[in-house]
Amino acid sequence: MTSKKLINSVAGCADDALAGLVACNPNLQLLQGHRVALRSDLDSLKGRVALLSGGGSGHEPAHAGFIGKGMLTGVIAGAVFTSPAVGSILAAIRAVAQAGTVGTLLIVKNYTGDRLNFGLAREQARAAGIPVEMVVIGDDSAFTVLKKAGRRGLCGTVLIHKVAGALAEAGVGLEEITERVNMVAKAMGTLGVSLSSCSVPGSRPTFELAADEVELGLGIHGEAGVHRIKIATADKIVTLMLDHMTNSSNVSHVPVKAGSSVVLMVNNLGGLSFLELGIIADAAVRSLEGRGVKIARSLVGTFMSALEMPGLSLTLLLVDEPLLKLIDAETTASAWPNTPKVSVTGRKRSRAAPTEPLEARDSTAAGGTKPHCWRRWPRVLARALEASSRAHSCCLAVGPGYVLGSRQMGGRVSEFLTTPLLAAIQGWLKEGPPPASPAQLLSKLSLLLLEKMGGSSGALYGLFLTAAAQPLKAKTDLPAWSAAMDAGLEAMQKYGKAAPGDRTMLDSLWAAGQELQAWKSPKADLLQILTKAVKSAEAAAQATKNMEAGAGRASYISSARLDQPDPGAVAAAAILRAILEVLQS
Amino acid sequence: MTSKKLINSVAGCADDALAGLVACNPNLQLLQGHRVALRSDLDSLKGRVALLSGGGSGHEPAHAGFIGKGMLTGVIAGAVFTSPAVGSILAAIRAVAQAGTVGTLLIVKNYTGDRLNFGLAREQARAAGIPVEMVVIGDDSAFTVLKKAGRRGLCGTVLIHKVAGALAEAGVGLEEITERVNMVAKAMGTLGVSLSSCSVPGSRPTFELAADEVELGLGIHGEAGVHRIKIATADKIVTLMLDHMTNSSNVSHVPVKAGSSVVLMVNNLGGLSFLELGIIADAAVRSLEGRGVKIARSLVGTFMSALEMPGLSLTLLLVDEPLLKLIDAETTASAWPNTPKVSVTGRKRSRAAPTEPLEARDSTAAGGTKPHCWRRWPRVLARALEASSRAHSCCLAVGPGYVLGSRQMGGRVSEFLTTPLLAAIQGWLKEGPPPASPAQLLSKLSLLLLEKMGGSSGALYGLFLTAAAQPLKAKTDLPAWSAAMDAGLEAMQKYGKAAPGDRTMLDSLWAAGQELQAWKSPKADLLQILTKAVKSAEAAAQATKNMEAGAGRASYISSARLDQPDPGAVAAAAILRAILEVLQS
Repeated sequence: MTSKKLINSVAGCADDALAGLVACNPNLQLLQGHRVALRSDLDSLKGRVALLSGGGSGHEPAHAGFIGKGMLTGVIAGAVFTSPAVGSILAAIRAVAQAGTVGTLLIVKNYTGDRLNFGLAREQARAAGIPVEMVVIGDDSAFTVLKKAGRRGLCGTVLIHKVAGALAEAGVGLEEITERVNMVAKAMGTLGVSLSSCSVPGSRPTFELAADEVELGLGIHGEAGVHRIKIATADKIVTLMLDHMTNSSNVSHVPVKAGSSVVLMVNNLGGLSFLELGIIADAAVRSLEGRGVKIARSLVGTFMSALEMPGLSLTLLLVDEPLLKLIDAETTASAWPNTPKVSVTGRKRSRAAPTEPLEARDSTAAGGTKPHCWRRWPRVLARALEASSRAHSCCLAVGPGYVLGSRQMGGRVSEFLTTPLLAAIQGWLKEGPPPASPAQLLSKLSLLLLEKMGGSSGALYGLFLTAAAQPLKAKTDLPAWSAAMDAGLEAMQKYGKAAPGDRTMLDSLWAAGQELQAWKSPKADLLQILTKAVKSAEAAAQATKNMEAGAGRASYISSARLDQPDPGAVAAAAILRAILEVLQS
Repeated sequence: MTSKKLINSVAGCADDALAGLVACNPNLQLLQGHRVALRSDLDSLKGRVALLSGGGSGHEPAHAGFIGKGMLTGVIAGAVFTSPAVGSILAAIRAVAQAGTVGTLLIVKNYTGDRLNFGLAREQARAAGIPVEMVVIGDDSAFTVLKKAGRRGLCGTVLIHKVAGALAEAGVGLEEITERVNMVAKAMGTLGVSLSSCSVPGSRPTFELAADEVELGLGIHGEAGVHRIKIATADKIVTLMLDHMTNSSNVSHVPVKAGSSVVLMVNNLGGLSFLELGIIADAAVRSLEGRGVKIARSLVGTFMSALEMPGLSLTLLLVDEPLLKLIDAETTASAWPNTPKVSVTGRKRSRAAPTEPLEARDSTAAGGTKPHCWRRWPRVLARALEASSRAHSCCLAVGPGYVLGSRQMGGRVSEFLTTPLLAAIQGWLKEGPPPASPAQLLSKLSLLLLEKMGGSSGALYGLFLTAAAQPLKAKTDLPAWSAAMDAGLEAMQKYGKAAPGDRTMLDSLWAAGQELQAWKSPKADLLQILTKAVKSAEAAAQATKNMEAGAGRASYISSARLDQPDPGAVAAAAILRAILEVLQS
């Protein structure tokens, strides 16, 4: 069985992918009859050096994503993991020559096919009188002993695109660019690791790994690596990789040591989550800085992939100030990241959080009368919570450890549900200074609820209390309390997205709120109206029995199983009843 | 068995990933004690509106990758796929307020947990006197009927970051930004598709798909989608997606029709290859333009992922010119791509390839004498190739369909190897105008070899001939022919990376080249020296029998199996022998 792919045809993969990249990037154009993408502003390059790269497809965004002002002039793409045709390379060279460029540098990853095909195109172009140079990039640090074929070209090639691109943009000549990038290419190393392999369209995965193994030192064509190791922590794997890459007994090492300045690339090989890429980046920065290495710049992203391989490569490039300027130079290439021109090492990575406690700021000119009862509210709420959990033997939705049916938990539910919150409220009453106003009281209760209650119910009551506190800042008379109820209900609806009739706690609170509008009338009676409100809330809670759930957790349960009143609605009504009882006592 | 991940611990994933992102981006800082990242230049934002976003981790680069000038001020990250803590949201709001911003807009994806936690933090901040607004983004176009919970927040949220960021950077006030982005948020839709699911660190994959199924309309938390369909071509799947997203009978559709201008986002959900992403982008552009939709901008990349999910989402945002200006505005956010400020639709996506044939340009002032024999060379080479394939009954390395041991293929090997090339050479001799010079002859032979011979041998001989042609442009005397041999050998070594002694065709050619140095002496004898060279080449070919392979394909074979002379070396010597024989006749 070949792997599942989102493609139109195996044969057309490379063409379609390049066409898509060009279609979405107006800075690029295809060269008719060839799998070649070029800058669409070729004519602006008169008198400058052109830079062409490419190779097999399957490494996207390399290389076409790096076409743009300040990077590549164009790329020639082969079929997946296959060197491009000489005729297309030659066509690209001729196209950029026709546009008036003064010479072309071919930037080629070190693979036999690419070396031969780009080399042949180069010789043919030179035979036709076009000045063409070629650099072969081998940045692989996997092999510890010398291979005749040399080091493979990996993600470091993208840094060469950048350096050469900045030089060409600055008007530097072909010979000097060639010389400079050849020097730069010698000062870098790349090492890959992967959790699994990849599969070429129409084929099976290229190698198999056990569930507890990772592959170290692999290339970018699905070929297996130099070591197969047991999975370990990100820190350990990164340490192992950096050790291998910088070990001077490894002939392909990059000579990074304490005091060195480097550009670090953390490259997604295709299918690794960006969460893991960030974790690896963190580990790499810590490990390098722990070795005394100065990270001048760090690039994290997908630069040179191996199809969907769930792995990454680390690249280290030794840099000095002049080289950094080239890395920092502007480019319009779509796949080059926005990177700050600031050293990664040596700057403050965190700032202190604000320390002053967030206290409700009462209006100092708060008018209105304080109702005689407001100082009893902490006790009111404590009683209310006790009552709410006792109120209904079934289906409570309040408290930590949300339960749908409390019958399953026996008689200890009420204790379980309210103990932490009760304890917190009692502790606060004993220790803290008494709140200076009803607004402060509600805000403080909101914080306690938030801290101790959790779940959506905790957040919703927290929202209710925080919003309800606002109208009480200016006044604390009965109309203000009615406005507080309105504000609380509005916040609950707004953020919780439930409406009355949705079989939630809002049903009973809403019913009470309607009755409490009467508090806004002159000479309204506190207890008389509250009594009416509590009765209305209780009736509304019972009525939820016949409602379908429109929001909240119960909306995930089939209505046939919902044969009881909503626990949130019942608990809310019980809270209101408890408040009434304390105030009546 | 839980999925393999490159992490340090399940519990620390979100912290480590955010720390890595911040470590590698000097524009960001962590807020101590919280999973919060903020712009490190907060103090430059005095008098402006701050923009905070965030939500569960696992969607990287969202949201921290979109922090920067012109986008977000900061983000608050929860654990993987979990809403962040209210206390951290509040701490972020207070930190940006302390820096002197004049108000904060919270940009929240529509999920209950995020809505409640961001909402609660907002209410608490407002209670403390900090102006805070909140927009809840629901851009999901999957559900065709109204859901109480509303549309889920998906990749379109990133466009809101961009629009709000541009407005805030321009100094627009909190209320106006809130109003504008609420309008923009209504004009977009997103739909996802995936080949497979993802797995939260420490857990199994969130759903299972058969090998021939894809999941349509999924969210970004590994939840299953609205349809499960059989895998089809990229074109068909994209058409289906766009139909669904724009169908006016779908309550969550985006009203895109012929004549509409849109921004198109093609978002990698994490683990899809960028090759496939490009193919999908191509299909989406074709399908939309086929509907008469004008694609104003197209963003292709990883913006809002679902860990390593191998899928993608398409987002469409209806735009007019003022909105496009905001999309185009500058930003330093690391994950926002370099996007040309040019319409995707309506521009030329290809340019004509150069049409003039690539002919070797002879020096008109070519001096030296033409040896009497050079016009016989096409026949010489034809004979040479025939000879080379007959020369050795074993191990031929010349021609299309490279074979290691011709014994396996019986007596028809020689015919198989040379027929297409011979036919091409014979055809050229009959039809074409005779080459004007030895340089043109070698260049033409090189093109024929390249076209008909293939493989590394074809490319290497092509390289040899192309390079050898160069010294013959100026002169064609015997010293020039010796220089041609030198140039050919140099090119072959340079691009093929083989040296004498590596058991390749170079061994015999090199030996001959050493003898041919004598052509450079005054009054050297053509045939006498060539005879010596052929003998030396034949001896060198035989000597490869005792060599270990250092380059070429044979280097992949254990030396114990290499008990015959190298086929490439033998064939090369046979070619030289054939040339000698024709010249002697």
